[in-house]
Amino acid sequence: MNLSGKHIIGFEEVKSSDTFTVSNPATGVVLDGEFSNGGGEAVESAAQLAERDFDVFRNMPLNKRADFLETIAEEILVLGDALLHRTMAETGLPLARLQGERSRTTGQLKLYAQVVREGSFLDARIDTAVLDRRPLPKPDVRQMQIALGPAAVFGASNFPLAFSVAGGDTASALAAGCPVIVKGHPAHPGTSELVGRAIQNAAKKCHMPEGVFSLIQGNNIEVGQALVRHPFIKAVAFTGSFKGGKALFDLAAARPEPIPVYAEMGSANPVFILPSALEHERVASGLVDSLTLGIGQFCTNPGIVFGLQGESFDKFSSVATDFLKQKPVGTMLHAGIKSAYEAGLDALASVTGVDVIAGDLKNAEACSGNPVLLKTNARTFLENDRLQEEVFGPSSLLIACESKAQILEIAASLTGHLSATIHGTKEELVEYRELITILERKVGRIIFNGFPTGVEVCHSMNHGGPFPATTDSRTTSVGTAAIKRFLRPVCYQNFPQEALPKALKNENDTKIWRLVDGNLGQEPFYPL
Amino acid sequence: MNLSGKHIIGFEEVKSSDTFTVSNPATGVVLDGEFSNGGGEAVESAAQLAERDFDVFRNMPLNKRADFLETIAEEILVLGDALLHRTMAETGLPLARLQGERSRTTGQLKLYAQVVREGSFLDARIDTAVLDRRPLPKPDVRQMQIALGPAAVFGASNFPLAFSVAGGDTASALAAGCPVIVKGHPAHPGTSELVGRAIQNAAKKCHMPEGVFSLIQGNNIEVGQALVRHPFIKAVAFTGSFKGGKALFDLAAARPEPIPVYAEMGSANPVFILPSALEHERVASGLVDSLTLGIGQFCTNPGIVFGLQGESFDKFSSVATDFLKQKPVGTMLHAGIKSAYEAGLDALASVTGVDVIAGDLKNAEACSGNPVLLKTNARTFLENDRLQEEVFGPSSLLIACESKAQILEIAASLTGHLSATIHGTKEELVEYRELITILERKVGRIIFNGFPTGVEVCHSMNHGGPFPATTDSRTTSVGTAAIKRFLRPVCYQNFPQEALPKALKNENDTKIWRLVDGNLGQEPFYPL
Repeated sequence: MNLSGKHIIGFEEVKSSDTFTVSNPATGVVLDGEFSNGGGEAVESAAQLAERDFDVFRNMPLNKRADFLETIAEEILVLGDALLHRTMAETGLPLARLQGERSRTTGQLKLYAQVVREGSFLDARIDTAVLDRRPLPKPDVRQMQIALGPAAVFGASNFPLAFSVAGGDTASALAAGCPVIVKGHPAHPGTSELVGRAIQNAAKKCHMPEGVFSLIQGNNIEVGQALVRHPFIKAVAFTGSFKGGKALFDLAAARPEPIPVYAEMGSANPVFILPSALEHERVASGLVDSLTLGIGQFCTNPGIVFGLQGESFDKFSSVATDFLKQKPVGTMLHAGIKSAYEAGLDALASVTGVDVIAGDLKNAEACSGNPVLLKTNARTFLENDRLQEEVFGPSSLLIACESKAQILEIAASLTGHLSATIHGTKEELVEYRELITILERKVGRIIFNGFPTGVEVCHSMNHGGPFPATTDSRTTSVGTAAIKRFLRPVCYQNFPQEALPKALKNENDTKIWRLVDGNLGQEPFYPL
Repeated sequence: MNLSGKHIIGFEEVKSSDTFTVSNPATGVVLDGEFSNGGGEAVESAAQLAERDFDVFRNMPLNKRADFLETIAEEILVLGDALLHRTMAETGLPLARLQGERSRTTGQLKLYAQVVREGSFLDARIDTAVLDRRPLPKPDVRQMQIALGPAAVFGASNFPLAFSVAGGDTASALAAGCPVIVKGHPAHPGTSELVGRAIQNAAKKCHMPEGVFSLIQGNNIEVGQALVRHPFIKAVAFTGSFKGGKALFDLAAARPEPIPVYAEMGSANPVFILPSALEHERVASGLVDSLTLGIGQFCTNPGIVFGLQGESFDKFSSVATDFLKQKPVGTMLHAGIKSAYEAGLDALASVTGVDVIAGDLKNAEACSGNPVLLKTNARTFLENDRLQEEVFGPSSLLIACESKAQILEIAASLTGHLSATIHGTKEELVEYRELITILERKVGRIIFNGFPTGVEVCHSMNHGGPFPATTDSRTTSVGTAAIKRFLRPVCYQNFPQEALPKALKNENDTKIWRLVDGNLGQEPFYPL
């Protein structure tokens, strides 16, 4: 495997004088590769190319755009196990997980290709003219969605494939017709380079314009800031910490021309265990499996768990404790994440009324994170806002509540989270109907008798939620609706057929769904 | 006509100790009514009610929500001519215009009622479970759009009915299921009160929860700021000046929880007259009709007009000048708008290379605005950014360009506008294909052989555009798509039928369009 360490700027590879390296979090050994540490110059080159080629890219036939997405998937597979081994070395994640994540990544690319070919994402609308309308004739008005412009995507450390260089943000932005400039995550630059080259190869094979994709490496925050500030950039997608996401949001809002920032900033994903479910060992074991999955390094990790106090709750806690103790210590993604995890645990444990019931808060190894369970009561939870902040890693806080009323009070006190989960019977769900009403306003996804980890990539998925889970609750970063983030409407009034975009011409030869005079259909439209 | 001058807070009327009055812009005479000048207290009461009743309102059956919108339309008509006469007195707008605007207002309300009954706006999606999928079973995932939360709407001065208390923003927010708190525009508080009471009556008649609507009067900026800062407010809609809209955007972005601001901040609406069209007198007369319509007080007023220099352009200018001289002086909405108009004209005329070719820049009457035409060349335009800023009033700047290439250069130099217009033949449109490609990135609507004034309320309309025309180019404030501004997705994973919202239950008894496993249809879904 040959790593140049360079940025990928269109069809070129470009070096910065400053470089950085990366080490294996499991061993501490420095890995091959001296990676260019990007700055304003790399951003400028990539942005110029993206802007130059934006119109060409967005106006290519949709099937060519779809071919490109599918070819990226193929080129990633061509990298074979060499990619997975490099990713393992950079992240400490096990092979089986990375195989699964690669499937998800290529699956996402292919799913967006389908969406692009199918064409409904264009939201094509036609209102036909009524020339004899009084007092004024009605014009012919047609609308469709077009790409926003070059998009900046920040690679996430916890999904080195599925939410990094060729991940969901990149795939959905390209699907929308936006050139993409990725800021590679500094924890897996080798993975980024390999995947970036796969995209570059696909772009060449599919005769895409050069500016369609660039990858800028860097382990400094200035390069990301330069990207978000660049006037050619029209949208930003980010998955990571609240601090990082909010800083990008503020930067984008302060631009002379503000632009949308889709920052998914994590969540504590509240879980409500209704009385009957406290009795089930499989709920306790499922919870522990979910909170330790991937060493707890998922945005959907269940961090806070509520139940009615009493014998059942105590038993549930004790069963969960037993399961947790069987879970191995895991290698976290990098030293920064591990230290943030332990600092988060310390902050929880330092709150009066919070007890550690399983696991040690500290692990002497640089990148090892211990599974931990903590426990408190509802009063303490309600009095300490910090207890609902995400602690990124394999821990959960169990919260004993006094009554149904207090559970509802707690739900109402929550800030925005990505998901909420309810365990119980159908009858309990009816009894707790009000809980669902409250949670609809607090989260993007409500799960019944399941666990929040494992985000299905499909049409109906919503991976998003009210602030501070994300900076834009109107959008999802997973699933086909994610493409909407990179689109805006344009309408054409009284245009001759020849000058209309293909999707809005009368004949509708690709049979896309369109809203014609308020009626959805796939038929051609023949004016009277 | 009985005006209490009070705020409408839910089903109550509430007074502030501070008051303001309003005068007739045509006569300068102070009109009846001492209007409460709102502050934080009124905002707090209205926000508390809106928050308290939000869940009740958003969860009412869709046909009840639609009935409410239709009843508002009826209650506005019940006000009869008394409403129109008060509006005439407050705005100086002629009766025929206000009759038309009232039709538009009631028509909008009824159109959103249709949209609500039809149900596609919910964007209901179902992905069915695949329990035997490997390596993991596929869950049942269902998604729909729900209301964002209480919305703040700022009444606009230039559409005292169609974009004020019961205008497009209020109608689309209510249609989405959001309670609305309107900040009434201080230039037409009597109109606001009458329409506000019509909404209040409709809410009572339709057994809506009290918090569904409030109207706060005020002629101070603090009341609007308090509204945008209030933690219960989840979205803001505004139509007005760049300064006002951008201030609200900045305020909302700086909140502890940032919220979306849909500010439509005006535009110079570039018009491109291609060579053949310069020859047509009807283009020149149409342009003058459009720029003087409503005394030029439309966001879509054509403010900058480009053509190739030469004899035809000179003739076009001279014909337009003749038409303009026949246009009467008009009464502007209020003294502030008139003085801003004249200041804007002064700023244009003070640029070296800009000539006034028709009309006087000043009118001695307090609220009278003169129609004015100015002229310059492309070089001057390109060197002076301020020449593409909106001057709100009955003026246009004609710009003589040297070549097609220079026209394209100018188009590429434009900032965001609401609309662009091209006059010419179909053949010229082919020749200027690149102009369309450029304009798609600059505006929200492109008009061929028409004029930008007159915004059709329909499914395909886009009244929006890139910054600085609006603060969110992804949305429209006119047409049925405007409802999307007040919605966000929520998804339900593995929910039992009983606990799902109606739109996501298998049976689909109201036959709404849904995306089931990627296929659009209105059928019920029966699981295998």
